[in-house]
Amino acid sequence: MQSIGVGVIGTGFMGKAHALAFAAAASVFDLDRRPHLAVLADADEARARRCAGQWGFSRGIGDWRALIADREVEVVSIATPNHLHEEMALAALAAGKTVYCEKPMATCIEGARRMAERARSCPTLLGYNYLRGPAIGLAKDMIAAGELGEIVAFKGRFAEDYMADPAAPHSWRCVRALAGSGALGDLGSHLLGFAIHLVGDVQAVAGEVSTVIATRPTTAGSAAVENDDQVHAVLRFANGARGVIDVSRVAWGYKNHLAVEITGTKGTIAFDQERLNELRYCKAGQAARTGGFSTILAGPQHPPYGAFSPAAGHQLGYGDLKTAEVGHLLRGLAGHGVIYPDFAIGLVIERIAAAIERASAERRWVDLDEV
Amino acid sequence: MQSIGVGVIGTGFMGKAHALAFAAAASVFDLDRRPHLAVLADADEARARRCAGQWGFSRGIGDWRALIADREVEVVSIATPNHLHEEMALAALAAGKTVYCEKPMATCIEGARRMAERARSCPTLLGYNYLRGPAIGLAKDMIAAGELGEIVAFKGRFAEDYMADPAAPHSWRCVRALAGSGALGDLGSHLLGFAIHLVGDVQAVAGEVSTVIATRPTTAGSAAVENDDQVHAVLRFANGARGVIDVSRVAWGYKNHLAVEITGTKGTIAFDQERLNELRYCKAGQAARTGGFSTILAGPQHPPYGAFSPAAGHQLGYGDLKTAEVGHLLRGLAGHGVIYPDFAIGLVIERIAAAIERASAERRWVDLDEV
Amino acid sequence: MQSIGVGVIGTGFMGKAHALAFAAAASVFDLDRRPHLAVLADADEARARRCAGQWGFSRGIGDWRALIADREVEVVSIATPNHLHEEMALAALAAGKTVYCEKPMATCIEGARRMAERARSCPTLLGYNYLRGPAIGLAKDMIAAGELGEIVAFKGRFAEDYMADPAAPHSWRCVRALAGSGALGDLGSHLLGFAIHLVGDVQAVAGEVSTVIATRPTTAGSAAVENDDQVHAVLRFANGARGVIDVSRVAWGYKNHLAVEITGTKGTIAFDQERLNELRYCKAGQAARTGGFSTILAGPQHPPYGAFSPAAGHQLGYGDLKTAEVGHLLRGLAGHGVIYPDFAIGLVIERIAAAIERASAERRWVDLDEV
Amino acid sequence: MQSIGVGVIGTGFMGKAHALAFAAAASVFDLDRRPHLAVLADADEARARRCAGQWGFSRGIGDWRALIADREVEVVSIATPNHLHEEMALAALAAGKTVYCEKPMATCIEGARRMAERARSCPTLLGYNYLRGPAIGLAKDMIAAGELGEIVAFKGRFAEDYMADPAAPHSWRCVRALAGSGALGDLGSHLLGFAIHLVGDVQAVAGEVSTVIATRPTTAGSAAVENDDQVHAVLRFANGARGVIDVSRVAWGYKNHLAVEITGTKGTIAFDQERLNELRYCKAGQAARTGGFSTILAGPQHPPYGAFSPAAGHQLGYGDLKTAEVGHLLRGLAGHGVIYPDFAIGLVIERIAAAIERASAERRWVDLDEV
Repeated sequence: MQSIGVGVIGTGFMGKAHALAFAAAASVFDLDRRPHLAVLADADEARARRCAGQWGFSRGIGDWRALIADREVEVVSIATPNHLHEEMALAALAAGKTVYCEKPMATCIEGARRMAERARSCPTLLGYNYLRGPAIGLAKDMIAAGELGEIVAFKGRFAEDYMADPAAPHSWRCVRALAGSGALGDLGSHLLGFAIHLVGDVQAVAGEVSTVIATRPTTAGSAAVENDDQVHAVLRFANGARGVIDVSRVAWGYKNHLAVEITGTKGTIAFDQERLNELRYCKAGQAARTGGFSTILAGPQHPPYGAFSPAAGHQLGYGDLKTAEVGHLLRGLAGHGVIYPDFAIGLVIERIAAAIERASAERRWVDLDEV
Repeated sequence: MQSIGVGVIGTGFMGKAHALAFAAAASVFDLDRRPHLAVLADADEARARRCAGQWGFSRGIGDWRALIADREVEVVSIATPNHLHEEMALAALAAGKTVYCEKPMATCIEGARRMAERARSCPTLLGYNYLRGPAIGLAKDMIAAGELGEIVAFKGRFAEDYMADPAAPHSWRCVRALAGSGALGDLGSHLLGFAIHLVGDVQAVAGEVSTVIATRPTTAGSAAVENDDQVHAVLRFANGARGVIDVSRVAWGYKNHLAVEITGTKGTIAFDQERLNELRYCKAGQAARTGGFSTILAGPQHPPYGAFSPAAGHQLGYGDLKTAEVGHLLRGLAGHGVIYPDFAIGLVIERIAAAIERASAERRWVDLDEV
Repeated sequence: MQSIGVGVIGTGFMGKAHALAFAAAASVFDLDRRPHLAVLADADEARARRCAGQWGFSRGIGDWRALIADREVEVVSIATPNHLHEEMALAALAAGKTVYCEKPMATCIEGARRMAERARSCPTLLGYNYLRGPAIGLAKDMIAAGELGEIVAFKGRFAEDYMADPAAPHSWRCVRALAGSGALGDLGSHLLGFAIHLVGDVQAVAGEVSTVIATRPTTAGSAAVENDDQVHAVLRFANGARGVIDVSRVAWGYKNHLAVEITGTKGTIAFDQERLNELRYCKAGQAARTGGFSTILAGPQHPPYGAFSPAAGHQLGYGDLKTAEVGHLLRGLAGHGVIYPDFAIGLVIERIAAAIERASAERRWVDLDEV
Repeated sequence: MQSIGVGVIGTGFMGKAHALAFAAAASVFDLDRRPHLAVLADADEARARRCAGQWGFSRGIGDWRALIADREVEVVSIATPNHLHEEMALAALAAGKTVYCEKPMATCIEGARRMAERARSCPTLLGYNYLRGPAIGLAKDMIAAGELGEIVAFKGRFAEDYMADPAAPHSWRCVRALAGSGALGDLGSHLLGFAIHLVGDVQAVAGEVSTVIATRPTTAGSAAVENDDQVHAVLRFANGARGVIDVSRVAWGYKNHLAVEITGTKGTIAFDQERLNELRYCKAGQAARTGGFSTILAGPQHPPYGAFSPAAGHQLGYGDLKTAEVGHLLRGLAGHGVIYPDFAIGLVIERIAAAIERASAERRWVDLDEV
C-alpha cells in the first residue's frame, strides 16, 4: 500500500487524537494509501520530539511553518488553539496542502471568510467529528430517505459544565481574541453543524447570548469574561422547519450533552452524544397498543460501525469517531465521496453563529443574508 | 365534619376528574369541611343525571345557571370547553361563588382580563394541576431555599402527538373562537405556568408560532386550522435568567411530555410529566469520581405524596394531582395557605402567551409590558 | 344504583387505601352496585371513629367481629397486620361474607391452606394490586395472544431498602410469628404472583433465603431478626421456562422495584413497578437498522387506564391500582369476570414461597408437589 | 523507545482488535517498550498477508507454529476459535513466550487445567477486556475502599440475541467440541469474571443450563444444538454474599447486555456494558428528600479513561478497552502491576462454569471444591 504523509500541529488532546486516528485509519478502513506519521510540530520543540516518539511520528519539530513546507507532508492537521487556525490554514493552503483543521474554524467571521475563500483550491476538512457517529449517520440516512416525512421541528442543545463553577479560573477560553465566542463557538458550532447537516439551511435567527459569570479569578485577582456562557435562540430553516437551541458551558451535570431531536410528519428521532451509540426513534402510525419510542443500539448496519466491529452493541467511542473522520478524509482524497464539512460548510456554521450574536446584540431577528 | 357544597359544570374527562377529586379530598387531606357533591350540570340533562348518579352527586341538571344559583353550591367547578369558561366564571363570580376553573382560562387575552378583574372579590383557582406533583413541589422548595443558587437558565417543552397525524380530523381545537390558540394555549399554558412558578416573572419574549398542518379533514371535505400546532420561543426573565421553550401537538411519540430543566449556579434539576414521580438533580460541587445526576423518586417526604402514601416509590397518578388540587383549594378556603394559581396568575400566563403570539406576528421581541 | 355494604378492618395505610378505592370505584367503573362505606373497625375504637368520619364511613367501631356480624356488611376488607389475616378471614367466611384480604395471605403455609379450604364457599380476593396495572394487563394480553411466542425465561426481582440500614429498628416485620417470612413474604409474594400470572405454574425451585442483618436495635438493646432479608432462587416452570428471582428489603436505592422481564421466542418484555405506566418491548424480527426496545407508555388502550382517563401518558398511580382492584372485585361479584387472585391462587403463591424456604434449608431442589 | 515483538494468530474480529490495540497502546499509555507488529498468522496464508499489509504487520504467514517460533515474537496473541486456544497456548508457553489469549480459555475444564498448569512459567493474560472499562475500574475501587460496606448480594446477567431467531443457522457455536459450552462459555465467562473480580471467590452454585432451540437449520437440513442457550443459577460467595445470574444468547433485544448490580451494606452500584461509560450508584444514608441513584459518567478521574481523553463524557468504546488491555499487559511485563486475569484466574472462571453445568446435570448444589 502506498503511503500519504501527514503532519500534525499541536500536541494537546486534539493533537494526540489526530495522531491516534491517522495511525488506526488504514487498519479500520479500506484505504488506497496508508497514512505515514511524518512530522509533529509544537512550539515547545522538546515536547514535540517526545510526543513524536511516543505517538509514532518520524520526527518532532518546533516550527510549524517547516512542517507545512516539508515535502513529505501532504496533509496538514491543525490541532492548535482556535486563534492560530487561520494563520496556519492559510499558510498550508498557500503551500497547496490538504488542510484538516479543528473547529471552530476561526475566532471571527472575517477569518472564516478568508479561510473559505482560500480553500477553493485545496481539499479541506473541519474536525466536526460528532457527525461521524453511527447514530448520526443513521439519522441522516433516515431523513434523506424520507422516513421522517417533512421536517417540522428541530430541538438542539449542547450543555457542559466545565465552567459552571464560578470559581473556575479565567483562561484563554474567556478571551475574545483567543477563543472567539464562548459556548457558542466551542459547543454551539457542533450543534449548528448538526442542524444544517440534518435539517438544512438556516434562514433567520433570534435569541440571546449571555454571560452568567461576569468575572473569573486569575492569579492576580480577577478578569472579565469577554464572551458568552450560554446561548438561547430560535431558528427558522429554509425548508420551513422551526427550531430552538440552547447552549451552555455552565450547566451543572453535563459533560458532553450534545442532544438533538428532530420531528417530521412521519416520526421523531432523538440523539444525545453522551450516549453516542443510541438513537431514539418513534415512527408515525404504530399501533397504539404497542407503539412508542424505541432505542436503536448502534451496530454494523450503521456505518461506520461495521468497519470497527461486526457485533452490535459493543460501543464506539470518541477516538473511533476521530478515526472515522480521518477515514472519511482519506477516502475523499482518493475520490471516494465528498469531503464534508469543508471550509465552505464551516463558514456557513460561522455565519449562523455570527447571526445569533448580532440578533442578541440588536434584539431582533437576523436573516442569514445579513451576515 | 361540616360540609361544603360543590357544583361541577361539565361531564367530560375533566368533569369526572373534578368529581373524583372532590370525593377523595377529605379522606386524603386534613380538611375542615368535607366536600358535598351537590349538583352536576351538563347541557345534556339526561347525561347530567346519569353521571350524577354514577359519580355520587345529589342531582344532575341541564342548566348551568341554575347550578350557580343553587344556594347549596359554594364552589363552582368549570370543566367545560375553553370558550365557555369566561361566561360561566363571570356568572359564578357575580353570584359570589368560589370559582375553580379549568385551564386555559379564556380564549383571548381580553376575556382573561375580564375574568381576573372580576375575580378580585372571590377566591378562584385554575386547574393547573401539574403544579401539584411531588417533584414540582420539591423543585419549588429547592429553588426557594437557594439550593440551586441563582437561576440562570430555563428549558421547557411540552410535546404531545394528538394531532401529529395529518389525517387527524378537524375539531373545535382548530377553531380560534372555540379553543383560542392551539398548542400554545392547550399545552403551552402549563409550561408557562411552570416557568413563572419556578423561575419568576417573564420580561420579554421572541419566537414563532406555526401551523404545521394547514388544513384537516372534516366530514364535508376539509377545513383550515386556525391556530398553532407548535411554538418555538426564547424567554427573558425579570431576574436575568434566559430560557427556551418549544411546544407541540404534532410531535410523534409524546403523550404528556411536559418537561422542564432549570440550571442555577449551584445545580441543575430536570422534570418530565411522563415520569411525574421523579426529579433529576445534579448538585454542584460533587466529587468528580462519584458525582452525577441523581434520580429522586417521590416519597412521603415530598408533599403532597405523604397524604396519599407513607411508602416511597409507590407512584402518584394524574387523579391524585387533581385530588391534591382540590385539597389545596379547600385548605385555602379554610385559611390554610394562599390559593395558587388564581385568576390573577392565570392572566399573567395568558399575557405571556399573547406576547409570544405578537412576537411571532411582528417578528420582534415583545416586552410583557406591551400586552 | 343499588348499593353494596362494605366493612374495612384496619386503619393504617392499607385501610385508608381500601376506603379510598371503594369510594372511587363506582365513579370510575361501570358497576351494578355502588359501594356503601358501612363500617370501619380498629382495635383503637376512638381512632376507628375518627377515621370513619374522615373517610366517609357510616360508623367506626372497635370490635372487628361486630363488623363481620353486621348485616349491612357484605364485603369484608381485611387490612390488618399479617398475623391477623387468618382469624379474621375465617370468621368472615364462616359468616358467609365476601372476603377481600391484603397480602401476604397468612404467616405460615398451614394458615394459607386453612384459608383456601374455607374459601370454597365464598368469593375471595387477595390484594395483589400490582396485577391491576395497565402495563401488566398488556403484558398478560400479549402473552396470551402468543405475541411473545413460547416463553423461555423469566427474570424477576423485588428490591426495596426499607431495612437496608443496619440501624433500622427491630419491628414486627422481623418476628416470624407476626410477619411470617421476611422479604420473601412481604415482597416476594408480589413477584411470585407476577410469575404465575404471566408465565404459569412453577414446578420446582432451588436457592437460598438469607438474613443480612442478624440483629436489630430495640429500645432495650437488640433482638434477633427471625426471617429473611433477601432471597435468591431459580425457578423451573411447568411449561419449561426457566427463571431467576431475587428479592431484598436491604437493597439501597430501591423503593418499589418490582421488576420482571419475560423472554419468549418472539420477543421480550420488561416492567418495573417504579415506572408502572411503562412496558418495554422488543419484538422479534424487526429490521436491524431501526429495531430495538421500545417503551410503551400506558394509555386508554391499556385497561384499566381508559376508565380513569381518555388521554395517554397522564399516569395512573398506586391508588388507581387499588381502585381498579376494587372495581375488579365488584364486577366479579356481579358476574362480570372471574375474581383473581382468590385464596386458592394465594395458596399457590404461598406454596412456592414455602418451597423456596425448604430448598434453602435443605440445600436442594424442591418440587412444588412436596409442599 | 525500545520495541517488543508481537505475533497475532487469527484475522477475524478479534485478530483485528488485537492488531489495532497493539498499534495504539504506546500512544495512549506510558510504556517502556513500543509494540512492534511483527507477524500475523492465519491458516489462509493469502489472507494473512493481505491483513498484515492493511494492519501494519511486518509479515503475514500461514503457519502459526512458525509465528511462535519466530525469535522476533515475544508476545503471542491467540485470537482464534475457542477449540484452538489450548494447543496454541501450550505451544507458545513451551517456547517461553508471553501468551495473550482470547476467552473462553478452553472448551473443557481439563484443557483449562492443562493451560493453567503450564502457564506457571510465563506471563499470560486472558482477553476479558470488559474488565478494563472505567466504570468497572471505579466499581472495583469503591468496593476495595469499603465504600459499599460489606457486599451482600450480586446480580448478574449477560443477554444477547444473536441466536434468538430459531431460524438462525447451526454453526460451530452449537458444537460442543468446537465451542465448549454455549451461552455459558461465550457470555457467562465474562459475567463470572466480573463476579470474582468484584465480589470474590464463589463457593457453591445451583441452577440450570438449558437449550431453548433444540435443532437449527443447516444447508443439509438441520442439526442438534449440543450446548446451552441460557443459564439460570444462584451463587454463594465465600464472603457470604449471595447472587443470581442469568445468561442468554436467545434474549430478543439485547446486543451486549452484560449487566451487574452489587449491593453492600453501604450502597448499591449497577453497570451495563451497553452503556459502558456509566455507573449507577446509590450511596447509603443520603437525605431522603434529595437522595437516589446517581449516574456517574466516565471521565479522566476513572482510569484508564484519562489516558484516552482529558474530557469527561466523551465516551470510550470497545476498541479502547482492548487498547487498555494491551496497555495493562505491556505495563505488567515491564513490572508495573500484576497481570490480571491470567490463566490461573481463567481456570477459576472455568471451574465455576463447570460447577454450574454439573449442578444442572445432577440437579443439586455443587461446591467449587468438587470441580
